[in-house]
Amino acid sequence: MSACLDGYHSPGSSTLQELNNIANRIRINSILSTTKAKSGHPTSSSSCAEILSVLFFRVMKYKVDVPKDPSADRFVMSKGHACPALYAAWVETGHLSEKDLMTLREMNSLYEGHPTPKIDFIDVATGSLGQGLGMAAGMAYIGKYVDKSNYRVYCLLGDGEMAEGSVWEAFAFASHYKLDNLVAIIDVNRLGQSDPTSLGHNTDVYRKRAEAFGWNGIEVDGHSVSDLNKTFYVAEKCKGMPTCMIAKTFKGKNMDGQEDLMGFHGKPVSAAATDSMIARIRELIKDSGVSLTPSPPVDDTQPTNISNIKLSSPPDYKLGDKLATRAAYGKALSKIGKNCDRVYSLDGDMKNSTFAQDYKKAYPDRFIECFIAEQNMVGAAIGMACRDRAVVFVSTFAAFLCRAYDHIRMGAVCETNINFFGSHCGISIGADGPSQMALEDLAMFRAVESSTVFYPSDPVSLERSVELCANTKGICYMRGARTATPVVYTADTKFEIGVAQVLRQTNADKVTVIGGGVTLAEALTAADILKGEGIGITVIDLFTVKPVDKATVVRCAQATGGRLITVEDHYPEGGIGSAVAEAISDVTGIKQVRMAVRGLPYSGAPTELLAAFEIDAQAIVRAVKAMIQ
Amino acid sequence: MSACLDGYHSPGSSTLQELNNIANRIRINSILSTTKAKSGHPTSSSSCAEILSVLFFRVMKYKVDVPKDPSADRFVMSKGHACPALYAAWVETGHLSEKDLMTLREMNSLYEGHPTPKIDFIDVATGSLGQGLGMAAGMAYIGKYVDKSNYRVYCLLGDGEMAEGSVWEAFAFASHYKLDNLVAIIDVNRLGQSDPTSLGHNTDVYRKRAEAFGWNGIEVDGHSVSDLNKTFYVAEKCKGMPTCMIAKTFKGKNMDGQEDLMGFHGKPVSAAATDSMIARIRELIKDSGVSLTPSPPVDDTQPTNISNIKLSSPPDYKLGDKLATRAAYGKALSKIGKNCDRVYSLDGDMKNSTFAQDYKKAYPDRFIECFIAEQNMVGAAIGMACRDRAVVFVSTFAAFLCRAYDHIRMGAVCETNINFFGSHCGISIGADGPSQMALEDLAMFRAVESSTVFYPSDPVSLERSVELCANTKGICYMRGARTATPVVYTADTKFEIGVAQVLRQTNADKVTVIGGGVTLAEALTAADILKGEGIGITVIDLFTVKPVDKATVVRCAQATGGRLITVEDHYPEGGIGSAVAEAISDVTGIKQVRMAVRGLPYSGAPTELLAAFEIDAQAIVRAVKAMIQ
Repeated sequence: MSACLDGYHSPGSSTLQELNNIANRIRINSILSTTKAKSGHPTSSSSCAEILSVLFFRVMKYKVDVPKDPSADRFVMSKGHACPALYAAWVETGHLSEKDLMTLREMNSLYEGHPTPKIDFIDVATGSLGQGLGMAAGMAYIGKYVDKSNYRVYCLLGDGEMAEGSVWEAFAFASHYKLDNLVAIIDVNRLGQSDPTSLGHNTDVYRKRAEAFGWNGIEVDGHSVSDLNKTFYVAEKCKGMPTCMIAKTFKGKNMDGQEDLMGFHGKPVSAAATDSMIARIRELIKDSGVSLTPSPPVDDTQPTNISNIKLSSPPDYKLGDKLATRAAYGKALSKIGKNCDRVYSLDGDMKNSTFAQDYKKAYPDRFIECFIAEQNMVGAAIGMACRDRAVVFVSTFAAFLCRAYDHIRMGAVCETNINFFGSHCGISIGADGPSQMALEDLAMFRAVESSTVFYPSDPVSLERSVELCANTKGICYMRGARTATPVVYTADTKFEIGVAQVLRQTNADKVTVIGGGVTLAEALTAADILKGEGIGITVIDLFTVKPVDKATVVRCAQATGGRLITVEDHYPEGGIGSAVAEAISDVTGIKQVRMAVRGLPYSGAPTELLAAFEIDAQAIVRAVKAMIQ
Repeated sequence: MSACLDGYHSPGSSTLQELNNIANRIRINSILSTTKAKSGHPTSSSSCAEILSVLFFRVMKYKVDVPKDPSADRFVMSKGHACPALYAAWVETGHLSEKDLMTLREMNSLYEGHPTPKIDFIDVATGSLGQGLGMAAGMAYIGKYVDKSNYRVYCLLGDGEMAEGSVWEAFAFASHYKLDNLVAIIDVNRLGQSDPTSLGHNTDVYRKRAEAFGWNGIEVDGHSVSDLNKTFYVAEKCKGMPTCMIAKTFKGKNMDGQEDLMGFHGKPVSAAATDSMIARIRELIKDSGVSLTPSPPVDDTQPTNISNIKLSSPPDYKLGDKLATRAAYGKALSKIGKNCDRVYSLDGDMKNSTFAQDYKKAYPDRFIECFIAEQNMVGAAIGMACRDRAVVFVSTFAAFLCRAYDHIRMGAVCETNINFFGSHCGISIGADGPSQMALEDLAMFRAVESSTVFYPSDPVSLERSVELCANTKGICYMRGARTATPVVYTADTKFEIGVAQVLRQTNADKVTVIGGGVTLAEALTAADILKGEGIGITVIDLFTVKPVDKATVVRCAQATGGRLITVEDHYPEGGIGSAVAEAISDVTGIKQVRMAVRGLPYSGAPTELLAAFEIDAQAIVRAVKAMIQ
């Protein structure tokens, strides 16, 4: 470490004492707030008190009154359950009052059981362990390569969450992209929730793992403000790779009768025991004669404009031509990227299948290869998009997005605005077999709070979906197909969220059929066949499966005698049929038949599979006839 | 490596030649089968041909005619897309005919685009990358600690999938449990699908990572049958830790014009180019004068009996007493564990919250701590349960099961029989906040093929759910609650999958209300309140949300004038309301009002949150009154 200590000046003893004082006040407030809340994590807070004290009062450059200042250093508390310590650190800065802190975990308090971005000093929600570092890496990527600013990103992890694979995905990502503006601090307090961790206090093992993953690994005494100071200095001087500080700490540090002991995870101190415990901690606080204030950042980050993003030219396809929606994805991205230099594309080594490669060709600096690590891809996307620094599109096979479901769920808690494109939905992908077929993606994304779910059925609507996604808050998902289907919309067709397109309709129609993607094409073919037999059907493309255009569905279904068929390349649960059944559940008089993929699929040609699982045109024809008999 | 080579005898040159011959025949058949199928992965197959040749003809002990023999060594092809090579290896053993191999990827062929256990030599489906090693680790755990047999487990991984965090979870798990009967072979062919991998041919980096994760790491020339022989020998002699062989290979090895080049991933050789390419490979095949046959295993594995598992004593609770369902979980597990010594409990450092700790106390040898690594926990569970070696229950917070959704999805493709208990569902957990609240778990599990979804609302039905799970094929999920609710069933109540319980019903009822867990309790309270006002309601507990007892729901709803309310501690999409809407979608005349958690929740007291999100008794009372006005 010595070489990197060139130019290092140790803080004086008064400063060190004050850093210890701050740490112990953080402890006290963590105990008091959790005792008052009757729940929470004082022991996990205590183990990281010195780390936070040094970070907030010696290391990080930020504006106490404007925590989200774009030039300010960022802090991500991956071990979100220890947030009482983080809130208490902000009390030390003066930004937060002790009175507000004491509302911890109460309804309508900003200071929830785990941090959320409702608080002005929180960028990303944490609480599902192992996710913070990926988000921090996304923020660091933006800082280094996009904002090209001096701000640095610090992420505090618990040792328990080092067991999560997503952490190691983030380690690989951060070293691959040489994120030397990123520092991870592992709070190795040895004790998990229900047992000691697998590695205990073997900080050397964590260091070796970090080093093997391409990081600068440094072991440090996590309760020594002096050592912590030094180590953060070394971290700042380290170029070309991120730094991981492995801090040996004790859970419940300075908490009388609880330090380094199992049995106290997530348990507030009893009201009766609080006074004496706090008195013991107060004894450690000595007048230092100094008052520490955080250093402000260099104002070097430019404002962004990511609003009102439009396609640079309208969709240009010929009605009836056949093209897979995925083939239009990269093109559409490139069109919005032409109008907004903050559009970023992330892909998981699938870019030649998702056609994200077209965006890479157009804007190589705005494409990020995330390799086969979907969790980190989503985490990094959330980090990149936070504070409105970028408009992020994430793509891979739709089936593999479920690898990141917990990250997507937490994305909603983060109030993130990221966009997903999942290609290769359903059995219509054919010979690759069930492992590659997304048949639950609509169910998954519909159940995400804040989500909008697009199911564009042709390249025109795909391009408009991309445009809408770029401008829609929350999580947007576009379901994409491998197989080519006909262009059904003219370039000037207007698309809106929650507005369905009625593609076929006459007054004499007997049944309303709703399809999406390949099954919309099959429904149109069925309509032609049935027309030849004198049977009219109304055909609807929902465009968005969430929200569903209830009014149009009800109107059409009622006009066809209450007869409604939904047909989809998805399992029967949670997809189009389910979305429609939910939407019309309080309307009586409509009988809905749900055609979907029933049973485990297998390899085969797309057309063979559509027939075998009875979601092709012939099956629709049969269902329509059965319904009107 | 030398020390571990004591006693090693190198195969003679004839044997080495024959191993090379086998490898090249595997290549040829991989090319031919994919060319015929017009899709598939010949280049990824070619890089691992020597590895498979040596494994199948020198290393593994198995019975060619009985691949699933319980004493046989196991092989998991984590890089499932290279399955043509695996199928071709079985052609070499004589177990599979070339004719059958040439049905690759055709509909109704067992030999799908990625391996599935429909084939007799496949234990677990692969194809979603990064999952095979966790499954293999579960199989190795069973072999070492449960079967206590000599069989060993080999897992072949691609280098691309080493980016998946789940792989590192498996590395940590396998070294923690000292699985020295497990060997991972990484086929480092340098090239991903759309770009080279992050680490290229830097096999030393993979070795350092493996070593840092507690494995015996060995670099090897993956095309040298001689080196491979030696290295597998070293692996077998290594005790106390698993071995990771890092094999440097070339994608498209021996494939003229494709070797070590980008642009050929997942692309069959054109029919025109096949003949000359194969002719060049055939030149490498020389008469060796020997014929190799696999060695049989030692028959040392005992049969298991995991059928007809019953609770050792009936549930014993007092009507009206309050208890959380999670509090009964460990007890119920212990009761079935008493009757079957193959019941295993896996938990992710949550056992004191899920009460899996009660099972650990009763049967410490049958509890496996998986730490905070949900993906590997599920993967290991699938591995443990395959070949009917164990009945596995996986528990953690319900919210965190979505971390493993891709593994659960693949579990269905594996035709696995594992069981899940997710505790802490919904907003009723209270102060911990949204990151810990499962509000999409029903949507997620319902959309899994083969799944049965239980929502036990009291400890009696929870115990019966556990008993049913143990005996039900496919994936079973039990939704559990943090909060105490009243015991509503007597010990002798019969529970069946797909059979709802009608808890309140009179002929004069005006509305049918369906709840689950805490909302069932709220519905019963609402019934009491309404009764006092002279309004009768029918109250239904679905018991299983998949399948839904459609007949009972329809009968009750029709008896109450078609008025139906569903109320649930879940988002509006995909839960109880959705399951019911789907089930009755083809029945007209029922108006369903869906009460659910709308909007992003936050910290608060459970009762406050139930009221704020309008799913408590008072909200139900209001909804009932609104409906009958």
